[in-house]
Order: sequence, then C-alpha cells, then structure tokens
Amino acid sequence: MVNYVPKPEDRFTFGLWTVGNIGRDPFGGPVREVISPVDIVHLLAEVGAYGVNYHDNDLIPIDASPDEERQIIKDFKVALNTTGLKMPMATTNLFTDPIFKDGAFTSNDPRVRAYAYQKVLKTIDIGVDLGAKVFVFWGGREGTETDASKNAADAVKRYREAINFFTEYVISQKYDLRIALEAKPNEPRSDLYLPTTGAMLGFIATLDHPEMVGVNPEVAHEHMAGLNFMHAAAQAWDAGKLFHIDLNDQLFGRYDQDFRFGAAMIKQNFFLVKFLEDVGYSGSRHFDAHAYRTEDYEGVKDFARGCMRTYLILKEKAQRFNADPEIQALLAEIHADDGAFDYLKAYSAEGVARLRATGFDRVGIGRKGLNYERLDQLTIEVLLGVR
Amino acid sequence: MVNYVPKPEDRFTFGLWTVGNIGRDPFGGPVREVISPVDIVHLLAEVGAYGVNYHDNDLIPIDASPDEERQIIKDFKVALNTTGLKMPMATTNLFTDPIFKDGAFTSNDPRVRAYAYQKVLKTIDIGVDLGAKVFVFWGGREGTETDASKNAADAVKRYREAINFFTEYVISQKYDLRIALEAKPNEPRSDLYLPTTGAMLGFIATLDHPEMVGVNPEVAHEHMAGLNFMHAAAQAWDAGKLFHIDLNDQLFGRYDQDFRFGAAMIKQNFFLVKFLEDVGYSGSRHFDAHAYRTEDYEGVKDFARGCMRTYLILKEKAQRFNADPEIQALLAEIHADDGAFDYLKAYSAEGVARLRATGFDRVGIGRKGLNYERLDQLTIEVLLGVR
Amino acid sequence: MVNYVPKPEDRFTFGLWTVGNIGRDPFGGPVREVISPVDIVHLLAEVGAYGVNYHDNDLIPIDASPDEERQIIKDFKVALNTTGLKMPMATTNLFTDPIFKDGAFTSNDPRVRAYAYQKVLKTIDIGVDLGAKVFVFWGGREGTETDASKNAADAVKRYREAINFFTEYVISQKYDLRIALEAKPNEPRSDLYLPTTGAMLGFIATLDHPEMVGVNPEVAHEHMAGLNFMHAAAQAWDAGKLFHIDLNDQLFGRYDQDFRFGAAMIKQNFFLVKFLEDVGYSGSRHFDAHAYRTEDYEGVKDFARGCMRTYLILKEKAQRFNADPEIQALLAEIHADDGAFDYLKAYSAEGVARLRATGFDRVGIGRKGLNYERLDQLTIEVLLGVR
Amino acid sequence: MVNYVPKPEDRFTFGLWTVGNIGRDPFGGPVREVISPVDIVHLLAEVGAYGVNYHDNDLIPIDASPDEERQIIKDFKVALNTTGLKMPMATTNLFTDPIFKDGAFTSNDPRVRAYAYQKVLKTIDIGVDLGAKVFVFWGGREGTETDASKNAADAVKRYREAINFFTEYVISQKYDLRIALEAKPNEPRSDLYLPTTGAMLGFIATLDHPEMVGVNPEVAHEHMAGLNFMHAAAQAWDAGKLFHIDLNDQLFGRYDQDFRFGAAMIKQNFFLVKFLEDVGYSGSRHFDAHAYRTEDYEGVKDFARGCMRTYLILKEKAQRFNADPEIQALLAEIHADDGAFDYLKAYSAEGVARLRATGFDRVGIGRKGLNYERLDQLTIEVLLGVR
Repeated sequence: MVNYVPKPEDRFTFGLWTVGNIGRDPFGGPVREVISPVDIVHLLAEVGAYGVNYHDNDLIPIDASPDEERQIIKDFKVALNTTGLKMPMATTNLFTDPIFKDGAFTSNDPRVRAYAYQKVLKTIDIGVDLGAKVFVFWGGREGTETDASKNAADAVKRYREAINFFTEYVISQKYDLRIALEAKPNEPRSDLYLPTTGAMLGFIATLDHPEMVGVNPEVAHEHMAGLNFMHAAAQAWDAGKLFHIDLNDQLFGRYDQDFRFGAAMIKQNFFLVKFLEDVGYSGSRHFDAHAYRTEDYEGVKDFARGCMRTYLILKEKAQRFNADPEIQALLAEIHADDGAFDYLKAYSAEGVARLRATGFDRVGIGRKGLNYERLDQLTIEVLLGVR
Repeated sequence: MVNYVPKPEDRFTFGLWTVGNIGRDPFGGPVREVISPVDIVHLLAEVGAYGVNYHDNDLIPIDASPDEERQIIKDFKVALNTTGLKMPMATTNLFTDPIFKDGAFTSNDPRVRAYAYQKVLKTIDIGVDLGAKVFVFWGGREGTETDASKNAADAVKRYREAINFFTEYVISQKYDLRIALEAKPNEPRSDLYLPTTGAMLGFIATLDHPEMVGVNPEVAHEHMAGLNFMHAAAQAWDAGKLFHIDLNDQLFGRYDQDFRFGAAMIKQNFFLVKFLEDVGYSGSRHFDAHAYRTEDYEGVKDFARGCMRTYLILKEKAQRFNADPEIQALLAEIHADDGAFDYLKAYSAEGVARLRATGFDRVGIGRKGLNYERLDQLTIEVLLGVR
Repeated sequence: MVNYVPKPEDRFTFGLWTVGNIGRDPFGGPVREVISPVDIVHLLAEVGAYGVNYHDNDLIPIDASPDEERQIIKDFKVALNTTGLKMPMATTNLFTDPIFKDGAFTSNDPRVRAYAYQKVLKTIDIGVDLGAKVFVFWGGREGTETDASKNAADAVKRYREAINFFTEYVISQKYDLRIALEAKPNEPRSDLYLPTTGAMLGFIATLDHPEMVGVNPEVAHEHMAGLNFMHAAAQAWDAGKLFHIDLNDQLFGRYDQDFRFGAAMIKQNFFLVKFLEDVGYSGSRHFDAHAYRTEDYEGVKDFARGCMRTYLILKEKAQRFNADPEIQALLAEIHADDGAFDYLKAYSAEGVARLRATGFDRVGIGRKGLNYERLDQLTIEVLLGVR
Repeated sequence: MVNYVPKPEDRFTFGLWTVGNIGRDPFGGPVREVISPVDIVHLLAEVGAYGVNYHDNDLIPIDASPDEERQIIKDFKVALNTTGLKMPMATTNLFTDPIFKDGAFTSNDPRVRAYAYQKVLKTIDIGVDLGAKVFVFWGGREGTETDASKNAADAVKRYREAINFFTEYVISQKYDLRIALEAKPNEPRSDLYLPTTGAMLGFIATLDHPEMVGVNPEVAHEHMAGLNFMHAAAQAWDAGKLFHIDLNDQLFGRYDQDFRFGAAMIKQNFFLVKFLEDVGYSGSRHFDAHAYRTEDYEGVKDFARGCMRTYLILKEKAQRFNADPEIQALLAEIHADDGAFDYLKAYSAEGVARLRATGFDRVGIGRKGLNYERLDQLTIEVLLGVR
C-alpha cells in the first residue's frame, strides 16, 4: 500500500455518470463532450478501478430501439470482458425525464408510477444479466415543493408498495440481488421523502421483505443535512444493512457538491475509512462523485485516481492510529471496564435489585478528566503525518 | 374554536422545564427567578394547559433526601389534583450533571451507564405513580466531539442494551407505559448518535420489543438539520410509532432555539398541524419550548398562551383548506386516479406481464402542468387570512 | 389594494430568465419549451408586471451575428412599446459559457478577464439604450472549489479592477446608470467570493467610485447562508446602497431554490416588505425566481401573479400592523425614551464626565420584562389574518 | 519549528475566558472549578502562550468594589510581569448580565445603552493601562428574536453612534488603540445584526473614523453561516482591516462550538494559516476556543497546546506547499500571464477601443482543462504528510 495503488480487492467502483459527467450545472452548460459507456469503461480500467456501476439511461438512451439496446449491451459486455472490470451495482434513473417531475413511485399520477415500475423491472433484468448483485434505489424526485400537493404518509405508502413489488419480483425470478435504498434530504426537490439513511432504515422495517433490503448511504447526502456520515454508516452496519456505500465529499448545508473523496472534510472521511476497515466492510467502495467543472478528461482521470488514492492513504492512517502506542494506551484507559456491571447487559429482577442497592460517587466520577483533547490532537497529528 | 381557547381535548401539555426555564444561555446568566414545580402547575392551569410533563430533576433535585423527595411528590400531587392537570409523560435528565459529560447509556465508563440505569428505573416508577403513559428518552449527551473516543457501532449497541433493559422492566412491572425516543442531531455534543427521527425508527427495528417503543419527534430538532418536520412525523405515523410529539419552532441550521410554536416558520407548522388533525393524532400536543430571555413571568404566560393559540388558529386554517372549493377542486384533479393501474398494488406475475405490455405516452405525460404553483398560492392565501 | 392587483407604481419587475426558465436542473432536463423574449414581454404584460430585466444572452444569443442582434433588439423594443413595459435593469451573463468556468473577473486566465470586460461593455451600451438605470453584477462563477487555485486577496483585487473600470466607462459615456453588486455564498462554485450583501458593502468602500455602486441583495442568497435577509437590506438602506432588490424565497442552508416570493418563509418576508414600505424604498421590486419544474406556462403565470399578489398582501399586513392599537401601544412602551441620555448621541468630554458620574440600577433594569413574546404573537396573528 | 514549540514571535494569545472556561452549556452545569485570572496567566505561561486577552468581567467581577478592583488589577499585573505574558487585546462583556438581554448599544432602552457606554469607557481605560493595543467589540446580544421589536436600520444607527463615540474618546485620550469589530450570525440571539465579517467591513465605511476601526474575524462565527473563513480574512486583509483574528474551529451550520484550532476542518484551516503566513500578517493569533466539557485542567492544557501545535504544523505544511516543485510548476502554469491585457488594469478610452477590436477564441479557451483536481489532490497529500 506504500504506493497507494488500487487493487481489485479494494473494490473501488465508479458509476458511469461519474467520470462520464459532462460538467453541466444549474448555471452553466456542459464543458466536456459526451463519451460512450465503452470509453468510460476503458477510462476506469486505465485509472485502476475494480468496477463500474450503471444507471439504465447512462448506458441505454431512454428512447433507444430494441436493436440499439441489444448492440449497446453487447458492446458494453465486450468492454467489461476486455478490461476485466466488474459491474456490481445497477440502478434506475427515475428523475431526469420530465415524466418524473413530480416523482416516480410517489408521483400523484398513477400512470407515472406504473411507468416507473416498468422501467425498474427492465433495469433489474439487464442489471442481473450484467452481473449486478446490488440494486440501488435513489428517489431523486420523490418529494415536494409544496406539501399541499401530496399527503406525506401516502407518499411513504406508495414508496413501500413499490419496494415490496420489486422484492417479490426478485424472489420470483430467483435473482441473487439485494436492494439498497439511498436517501437524500433535498435537491432537486425542496424536500425529499425519507431524507436520511436513518429514515431509510426505519422505512425498511415496514417492508414485506426487510431482509432483502438495506441502504446505500452517501457522504454528500448526509453532509447536506449537516449530519455525521460515519455515524449513519455505523448505524446501518450495526443493523446489518450496509449493502453498498457512496463515497464522495461535501461541505455541510449546501447544494449537492459530489466532490472527490476526501477533498473537503479530511478528518470526517478518516473516521469513515477507519470504521469501514475496522469492521471489515467487504462491499464496493463506490465513488459517486465527479470532477470539477474546470477539468477536461485528463482532469477527470486525476479526479478518479485521487478518490482511490486518498482512500488508501486514509486506510494507512487508520492502521497507524491502531498501531500508535500512545493512542492505544489512552484508548485502553478510556475504555477500561472491570466487568463490575456486566450483570446489567441482560435484564433480570436480581440485577435491578442489585443496582438499586448500589451507591455511586456521582461527584467524583463527574470530576474525572477524560483525555479526549489529547486523544483528538494525536489523531490530528496522525492525519497530518507528523507522527 | 372561534376564540382559540384551549380545551382539555386539545391535549396541550408543557414540560416543567419550559415555563420554568430561567433564561440562562451559553452567554448569559438567568433572567428569571426559579419557581417551584407547584407554582409551575398553577401557572399552567392559569393559561389553560391540559397537562404537565416532567424531567425527574425538575421535580426532585438530584441530591434530595428521601424525605424531601416524598414531600415534593406529595405537594406536586396536591397541585395536580387542585388544578386538574394531568401528567401524561415522564423523562429522565441524563445530561445536566457532570457525571453524564460523555453520555449516559453510551458513556465509555460502565459506572456512568449503571448510574443512568438506576436513575431511569426510579424515574419510571415515579412517573407511573404520577400517571405517565409515555416515557420519553432524549439522549442529550449520547454523542461525541471526537470520533476517536468511541466506536459508533458500540454506542448504538449500548443504547440498545439500555432500551431493551427498560422494556423488560416495564413488562416485569406490568406498567401501562410506552417508550418514545427523541432524536436530536447535535448540541450539546458536536454529533449526537441516532440524530433524526428516522434514525430512531431504524433503531427501534433492532430492539427486543419494538412494539413498545415509538418516537417523540421535535420540530426544532429536525429543523436543526434542515429537515421537513412534517415528513418525519408522517413517517412515524405511517409506522404506527408517533407516540408523542414535541412542538416548538426553530430556524434551520442553528443552535437549539425552542421558540414558541409557530413563531418562526408558519407554513411548515401549518402543514404539521394539518397532518396531525387530518390523520386524527390523539396524543399530547407537548410544547417543548421556552419564552425569550427578554421576558418576565408575564411574558412566559404570553409565550404559553401563544403556543396553544397559534396551534388552534392553524387547526382552523386546516379546516378552511379542507373546505375551500377551489383548493379541493384542484386537489381532486391532482389526485385523479381511474384505477387503471390498481393491479400493481400487489405483486403478481400477471401484473408484471400486463405492465410489460403497456405503452406509455412518456412525452405527453411529462408535458402536463400540475398546477402546484396555484395550489401553493391558494394555501398561502388561506394562511394569510385573505380567503 | 383590496384586490391585490399590481399597478405600475408597485414597480414589479421580472427578469427574462425567470418566467422564461425552462425547468432544467442538475438532475433533470427541461420541462418547458423555450419561448422568445418577445413572448416573455407579452406574458409579463398579461400578468400585470411593470418591467422586464435582462441578461445579455437571454435576449441575444452569445454567438448571434450583428444582423441577428439588431433584429432581436428591434423586435424587443417593439414588444416593450406595445406593452408599455419598462426595462429598468440590465446585467451580463458571466457564468453560463464554458469560458467562464473559473470565473470572469477573477479567472486566472487574463484572456477570460478581458473577454468578460468586452462582454460587459457591450451589455452596458445595449442596456442603456433599452432604458436601464441600474446595472447589476452577479459574479456567478467568481469563486473556487479549491483555494489552492487562486489567492483570495488577488481575486478581490481583480474584482475591484473590473468594477473600477466599468465605473470609469459609465462616467466617460455620461450614462445615467448606477451599478448594483449581488452577492451569493456558493453554487455553482463551492465558495463564491464576497459571499454576502455585507461583504459587497465592505468591498464597495474600497472602490474608486463608491458613490456609483450599491447592492442588489437577494432573499434566496442570504437565506442560503442562513442569514436574516431583512437585516441585510436594512444595512444596505442605512448605507444608502439599496439600489435594487431581488425578491424570491428559499429555505436556509440549501441549494438555490428561487421560489415564488413568500412561498417558503412567510414571517421573514413580511418583515422585509414592512421594512421596504416603511422606509419608502422606491426602486424596482424585482422577482428573481422561477416556477416549480412541475408547471407548464399556465403555472408560470400563476407563479408570476403569486409573487406580486403575496407582496401586496404583505404590504397590507404591514399597514395593519402599523395601525393596530394594541401593537402600537406596546411599541410605544418598548421604544419609550425620555431623552435623559440624548447627551450621548455625540461625543463630548462633558458627556463622558456626566456619564461616569451616573449610577444605574443594573439589577432592576435587567429584571424588567420586555413584552416581546406578546408583541410577536400579535404579529403572527396579524399575519394569519385573525386580527 | 521541527518540534512545533510556540515562540513569542508566533504571537499566540488566549482570552481569560478560554482556558478559564468552566464547561457550562445550555444543557449542563459546570465541570471545572473556577480558577483565578492569576492562575490562568500562569497556566498560559506554562503551555507557552505569548499573551492573554481579557473581557472586563473575567478579570473584575461586575459588582466588585473599587478596592477589590484595584487589588485584582495589581495582582494581575504582577502575574503578567512574573510570567512575561503580554495583554495585547481588551474587550467588554456586554452580553452576560440580564441588563443586556436585549442588547447593549442596540437595546431599546436608552438606560441600557448608556450603561453599556459607561462600561466600555472603563474597560478601555483599564485595557490601555494593561497594555492593550487592540480593543475588540463583539455585540453578543445586538440582535433580535422578533423583528417586530426593533427597526433594523435604527439598530445599525445606534451601533454606529456607539463606535463613533468610542473612537472620539480614544482620540481625546491620545490612546494608541485600534478598534476591531467581531461579527457573529446568531446565538445567543436568533439573529445578530451585522452578522458577518463582510457586514462589519461595510459598516466601518459608514463610521466617522473608519481608519481607526477594523475587524476581528472568528473562524467559528463565519463557519456557523457556512462561509469560507479564509475568504473573509482575505477580504479584510485586502481592505487593510485585519486588526486581529480569532482562531478556533467549528462545523458549518451549528451552535457555536469553539473547538481547538484545526480540530474540525483541517483543509480549511490550512488555507487560512497559509494565507496569514503568505501575506505576513503580524498581529495576534488569538485562540478564542475552549476545551471539551469532558476535560479537567490537564485536558485544558492539552487543548491549549494543541491549538498552537496545529497552527505550527499547518504553517510548516504551507512552507512545503510553497516549496513543492510539482505544485509550483502547476501554479506557474495556472497563473501564466503574458501581459497582453495589462492595458486593462486602468481604464482608458484607448483601452476600450482596443478591447472592442479584439477577437477571442471563446470555445477554445473554454475547452482548456485547468488541472485543479490534480492541484487539489497534491494539496491533500501535502496535508496528509505523504509528500
């Protein structure tokens, strides 16, 4: 890892729409020409990625003919075979076309909902054919500008009907495919339903097949709400629901920036990488980001290489943190536990009685310094490479 | 309702700490003298509240002797009886005392966790004795300033152990008591675990007794993360988990303001009241807010009366919205559904086949204007009282 | 005003780009066909606007030939004459074309800066010809994604050089034209220079001709930074620098939403309208907003009518507030001043001596309740139309 | 600097209230006992600070008798002399006492404004006596919860009257003292007037003696509004107004966190240190922060040492960045300027004519990649210590 060169076992993937992003934004036209999915696969192979993920319409235009579609898929498979890249994740674009302007599954128009179902079914089939093991749903337009237009509880019901439908479909087809739900608080709608990874975890509990459904948390999306992303990933992990992850970077409380991983908030991303590596997360490290609009395709490659390189550097920092004797001595002290209260780990009437009879030195315990300033400063110094 | 006078069936409650707030903040000392819990009950009766809720230490000082405690509870019961106020909700203060400086259930110190358990058990007993049907947990210090200090997944595990313990206790005591978890994204810790109502719903799904545990969403707390609060309440309602609600107001992305209900974001609170009334929420409308620091106790009463009055005005607005012919005609059009796609409500292989064979006028549907600007403008005009 | 019908003296204007917005966003294609500037003028006349403002390239495509340009301007003038609409403000698009991807005046490339100057000179000439009295500069790309790329102090210097250049040009041409600078904190760049109206006021003080330059504050832009917009407008007014104003609406801490005026934060917009009307602001009320993406052109008209109508309703609310005896009695008490300390309004050694000798009842003054809860509740009730 | 040991020439200072902070917050009582100003001076000497700054009431209680005051000042001077610490900055507490609950200079009560003047005059005198060269004004309560209570333009006028008064006083006393205004967007008031460093710069332009008045920007305060702090400092520097600086750290869009310098947003603080060092800022580096509430006084020392150490590490990183050949080669390319457009640096009619006659390869220039991804990645790698 000394050279921070990506290897297949790092499971670094990019969406077609990431390195293929042409740099359009709300205030400006495209700055890079469109390149084909085949070219994107070769670009990703060149920079050392493990895999490529796809939105249906990034590969196949929404109005492609069946013949065009067949040819495109064939060419794409050739590119995957030639380069050795995998395609571990698939997802449906349910937000770009004007038909989805009021959402897909939560649209008020039943025709739109039905069309969205049709589009998803097709994407599932193609995705599985291309090797996808995870199917992501990001409800890019599932929301409102005015809450007069939809009943928010009905919207959740419609969302659930949709996911239940697709889990049944996956079961019926005996597909080896898990579903991962991706949350975002706002943009392009003023408020999106199920706005956080936590909300998605709560929603999953109401599904017919919760065991098939997990989450795909994205750094930028939690940061838009000013939330600690690692905490969201940890909750998902604790619940056995971290099926996929979208890595990028973003300042809090802003438009969706989708920056190169590690480009904005170094310390926060360090704790994320440390968490993923410490617990042994083995899924894709998917970079859902794009190059600055100032770049040409050389810059796009710099961007893609930078995502992977920074991940690897932070992974090495996590190892240093875990190996640093001073830090580990501090942590041993901080986490000291003589087991005296292990009897509370499970409820018992005896435990309650014993606890009620216990006296605590409330004032004394409250007075003890916890050494977190020192610990955090040591962490910063590991990050800055001065220890 | 013409006079917007609170009635018992409105279920308006206030915490002891709300009208009893003495106006201290991080940059200033108290501006109001401490008044006793008994005085608070009488103040609330004077302004027309239905009930009062309590944190243990708002009623009983943390270092009260058993005799003092007995007397305080006795006096408090007399005040409740005299005024007719109910005490429907109880909660434990696990954040003020220095012992909780690194959290209670998620503290790294097992003694702190055990002391927190002891404190909660006692509060449950007293709360049930005083009539509480809902027990709220707000983990005011369950978080971090530096993620080097705790493993976030361990923190969630500890939180779960605690809630599991208390549900077993409630069962063992045959208490008629439901638990409601309250989320907050940050303050007083830099990042609090389980930061949103959605995260709490996700967490509940991992508990031993999820059926006993719901949420207590708070307007200000979701607003701190810039989230649509009504959407959070609707998700909780949809999941059957809206056990309690904390009403107040707050601008997005700021310190915890706890303003008078409706004082900051009128439209957003209108949609909330409309949702609660439309679905028939029957629990407490708990105002978890406090008067500006500029006020004396006359101002505190103005504050308390204003919370209830604005709720009732917004409730009347919701009725007007529901009765407005132009609005309802628009909504009928917006929600039109001829049932043609009802076959998709439940999965079937036939339904999939039928859907695959269906053609959609994608471009035509996308072109249709949805009249949401007009609908929203009419809503604003209902709110402003000009229709 | 009972019917809230816009009149010319209300000075309601819209940019070509507002009702002409085709509904593209970062995640979706256009939903409305392009309509011509002439059609936009007629649409605005139909809804009752006073004037139309223009970005150069909304009227004249960036690559139009001189002949095309002449014809477009001619047609536009005819439309203005036919409808009676005014064109009081002009501005240059320095952000859409890829050449401006790293800014215009602050670009690192001197050719880009020169091209931007050329573009502005031409827009000034055409703007003056079309009747503009105010020329707005919004530096849509004047910022960075990485501060490694530019020296921020140099960027400010370049910005200043540009504005100085144009003030000299305006003087040399004897144009009757004032310049108004518009701030925005971020989007489409990660950080924009001079991000707030306050920053622009500070910048103006460093110019060669500060007397010719003021600000064009925009509701949405200050709200993106979570700032009180009325306070920003008031500071500009106090400094004699409120040359123009962009009205719209926006939730705090989000992407640039540009909602219909009054659609998101009612109370905040009320205080703004009250301020503008109370102080007698006589410039354009420019609505820099656009219809939801769910709308067709009928919805665009609803949007435009709603902006003006809500302004007029809030203006009437301000009159009610100013005429409400209970509110005015409270305010008289709140603002009571017996003149005892008027001697401090200007510095004098005697004043200092007298002040030093004065005793204050610090505790007593601190104890007085200020009745702001009651005042605010009355304000809310005026807004809700129940008083 | 290899050992990152603070030296006097680093100009590292701390306020009495920083290391003396006892860890109270809105949800918890104090965790550290009060220590005397003399003890604070010794603590700061121990950790290697250059100086200590004071709020009046951190040194002298608001109700101290003249005798007590004299003794306190005497003891404090002895401590300064003994330790060699300087006291370069003084400021008045105009926010803690209940008398200031509606502000000081902008209070609606003329008695409060007068008392605030009296308090400031006294603090100026003592501050100058103790060696202060900079006098900071932070208007901690100059704001509102409801804009019904104050006219925002009047508030600015009152603020100006106050600052004008004090500049006259300083002149009259022939004090060698400059004034620095500190902005904050909110907390403890819902909205504070003049909320950003930019707003303060705009305000200064309206004063009678703008040359005597500059700013004291604070990292945390701009971050609360989600603004790029370095840009604010650079604008102040460009205007010759960077009289003082408050270093700490803070996540965007949250309560005032006042973290150890560099503890939250590493990259952003790097660019700040780089800017200050590159331009040769020679004033105090004042750490206006405090230790986590989890700490005892050993942790407070860790905190204080960490602030200085991280500054010095980042300063070394800036030197590395400036010396890195690959980075510097990139920058040379990025900033290339052949002088062809130097004629535009000052306005001339000839320049305009020449510019009008110039053709630009708009499309070609727009197509050029700018290498900012690569530049930023190299910056990240310098920060992480891997180059």
